[in-house]
Amino acid sequence: MSDTPDSAVRTYTEQHRTAFLDDLAAWLRIPSVSAQPVHDGDVRRSAEWLSAKLEETGFPVTEIWETPGAPAVFAHWPSDDPDAPTVLVYGHHDVQPAAREDGWDTDPFEPVIRDGRMYGRGAADDKGQVFFHTLGVRAHLAVTGRTAPAVNLKLLIEGEEESGSPNFRALVEERADRLTADAVIVSDTGMWDESTPTVCTGMRGLAECEIELHGPEQDIHSGSFGGAVPNPATAVARLVAALHDADGRVAIPGFYDGVAELTDSERALFAELPFDEATWLRTAKSRSASGEAGYSTLERVWARPTAEVNGIGGGYQGAGSKTIIPSSALVKISFRLVAGQDPDRVQQVVRAWAEAQVPAGVGHRITFAPATRPCLTPLDHPALQAVARAMGRAFGQKILFTREGGSGPAADLQDVLGAPVLFLGISVPSDGWHAPNEKVELDLLFKGVETTAHLWGELAAALR
Amino acid sequence: MSDTPDSAVRTYTEQHRTAFLDDLAAWLRIPSVSAQPVHDGDVRRSAEWLSAKLEETGFPVTEIWETPGAPAVFAHWPSDDPDAPTVLVYGHHDVQPAAREDGWDTDPFEPVIRDGRMYGRGAADDKGQVFFHTLGVRAHLAVTGRTAPAVNLKLLIEGEEESGSPNFRALVEERADRLTADAVIVSDTGMWDESTPTVCTGMRGLAECEIELHGPEQDIHSGSFGGAVPNPATAVARLVAALHDADGRVAIPGFYDGVAELTDSERALFAELPFDEATWLRTAKSRSASGEAGYSTLERVWARPTAEVNGIGGGYQGAGSKTIIPSSALVKISFRLVAGQDPDRVQQVVRAWAEAQVPAGVGHRITFAPATRPCLTPLDHPALQAVARAMGRAFGQKILFTREGGSGPAADLQDVLGAPVLFLGISVPSDGWHAPNEKVELDLLFKGVETTAHLWGELAAALR
Repeated sequence: MSDTPDSAVRTYTEQHRTAFLDDLAAWLRIPSVSAQPVHDGDVRRSAEWLSAKLEETGFPVTEIWETPGAPAVFAHWPSDDPDAPTVLVYGHHDVQPAAREDGWDTDPFEPVIRDGRMYGRGAADDKGQVFFHTLGVRAHLAVTGRTAPAVNLKLLIEGEEESGSPNFRALVEERADRLTADAVIVSDTGMWDESTPTVCTGMRGLAECEIELHGPEQDIHSGSFGGAVPNPATAVARLVAALHDADGRVAIPGFYDGVAELTDSERALFAELPFDEATWLRTAKSRSASGEAGYSTLERVWARPTAEVNGIGGGYQGAGSKTIIPSSALVKISFRLVAGQDPDRVQQVVRAWAEAQVPAGVGHRITFAPATRPCLTPLDHPALQAVARAMGRAFGQKILFTREGGSGPAADLQDVLGAPVLFLGISVPSDGWHAPNEKVELDLLFKGVETTAHLWGELAAALR
Repeated sequence: MSDTPDSAVRTYTEQHRTAFLDDLAAWLRIPSVSAQPVHDGDVRRSAEWLSAKLEETGFPVTEIWETPGAPAVFAHWPSDDPDAPTVLVYGHHDVQPAAREDGWDTDPFEPVIRDGRMYGRGAADDKGQVFFHTLGVRAHLAVTGRTAPAVNLKLLIEGEEESGSPNFRALVEERADRLTADAVIVSDTGMWDESTPTVCTGMRGLAECEIELHGPEQDIHSGSFGGAVPNPATAVARLVAALHDADGRVAIPGFYDGVAELTDSERALFAELPFDEATWLRTAKSRSASGEAGYSTLERVWARPTAEVNGIGGGYQGAGSKTIIPSSALVKISFRLVAGQDPDRVQQVVRAWAEAQVPAGVGHRITFAPATRPCLTPLDHPALQAVARAMGRAFGQKILFTREGGSGPAADLQDVLGAPVLFLGISVPSDGWHAPNEKVELDLLFKGVETTAHLWGELAAALR
């Protein structure tokens, strides 16, 4: 584990700093906005640019993988050690839309370095985080004197993450034989803040449903009929009101089946984070925190399943009034899931519960979107400990642990490949993902390089 | 009361049948659609036509009253009896929009007589019902040999009823000294059906409010924040769910204060009506009846106050899903009020209740539209009995009693003038108000003429 001395890695990184930043800037200049068809060619150019750069880095195998949408990039650098474990790195080369007039101080696709930061769309999400792997693996080889990495290193960098990864799972399933791995490293998240390096240990899963209730065949007069027939808007409201109990727990029977409860040590680790509720509320743009009784705010968003109304609607919503009983009403509810919950089972209990809420004389239609599984790596997993060690060496600090409240395609990799997912995300909340003036802190970018330089040795030892 | 023998009235009416129908057809040809600015000139033409016709009928005073919108017509025929009571007839000369392509078999503004019916926009709502008063008062004079009516007869025929009567209350308040009356006759409703002549005894009032709840400053990510901040869509649903108790009663403290309970005789009279729930449900386009426990369907819509959601909305309502906690949500609720309820007091208790439902960390804005009072004439009121007697003589049948679940400008007349409101509506549900192929049954039209021919003598005696 000391085959990549910290100081040697740092020196190597320093020496290649300028060329590395020039290359990243060149990539950021390609506006690979997957959501905007006008940029389809740019997304392809971005994939080709990355593929060429990975080849130049030394990957013997670099391929562009087509999908029905935007292309992904695959690269493979087999280890020279026949017993080496295999690690797959996930990231994405597409970016969010951006335009100067959205509030950018400079052209989002003409990166500039100012005050130790590089500004540009994709600087943090996710080109910067994908790119630190290229210099990282070269540093790993340079300071160890190896000709191939200590692990069989694979990269899968998709091109549709900012469009909801519509073809990602199918791609992974189709190419599963090429993607086999003992561990997956996802570099598309962040850490707590500039002075608190952290490793994320899991993400919540997601089940989404839409419930439509049908009352009268058409809107009817609330004077002539009001008080004497079921009102679907009232019915949908009662259904939503029944979602939670007085303690803020989801009141659907069976919803909590299998939920992995937080251990004392996980709660203790969360509590070590410098959490300030007032600051968090500013980020949440909310006036107060509330939720399931018996859990802290961080526990609620990271480790507890939820039911949130994303949208509700029915009847007249315009200016003024319209005295009708609406013909129909709907609600869209998303359930965040945690380790131990099975999305199929959740859909079953939600459906059964919702059907039981529908009053007589009201019709219903319940539909579910494809679900995303939760993923969670136990704190004592050797691969997770290896990631924390590599990061600790780069930062020279104790590494704390977080989770993500959101859900992502990482779960698909865990699902299809059957490998644990580790999150190596070196970005901070102020980086402005999806916002104007997205940037990456250059110091952190090079901490990312150093972390990955240490990581392959750490993982090879941990997974052996 | 026998100064207008039934047979003499019938003979007089028969003799003037053709000219009366020709005149009504001429009026229906004027497309006085108040909701469509292109017809502003037609609404004025309609007022002028009616004013001239009332003058020709014999009214010594006919005036066109301007409003900020469409003009109303006022007419006055003082009685020759110095002790005669004063009666004000209300109706409207504007009509709903209509176009051949909406499903009319013939031009809506080119009336035709077919199978004992006159088809045309306004035939029943409300030109036909206004117009039977013109022949009615002439029959009253002809068969009694009087030169002036047995009551001081006033007519106020507005031009904006189909546009929500935006200027009506102000007009009544401004002209209150010209409109003083001992009773108001509203001819703008209907009766139970072709074979069941009825008198409506009241309408419900209306209080409308919009409640907007505010959560995060903008939509926020339901993964990053879900489960830990208040969701305004959930809050609005809980508020709506708290509107009613398990018995379908409105659960707002103080809401039922003052409500005039149905008497046993009123319930018995309602029960005499040939009500068939399956038929009623077809009209309501609903699958089942439901509402306040302990009341029949007719009692629920006619005699009980209600709270109905007219619209609810918040967050994402489009196709697919969007994983947000919405920034705001709203609900529009209309309360139908019955005799004994004070709309100001209802607004107060609704506001207090709604504010108490808003959870911590959620902002709110509650607004009320101008309210409409309920109106109800007691069954034993002499003027109501006079209307029923006049109608009974025309129909040769027992007259039953109904109410209206809706709300209307009649309440403004009751309010401002302090006079009881009686409903003389001779139209049937099949007349197609606001629908294509609106028609009036000629037999019923002439029953209206006969009823009004008897009415002034009956009322003069009853109110003396």
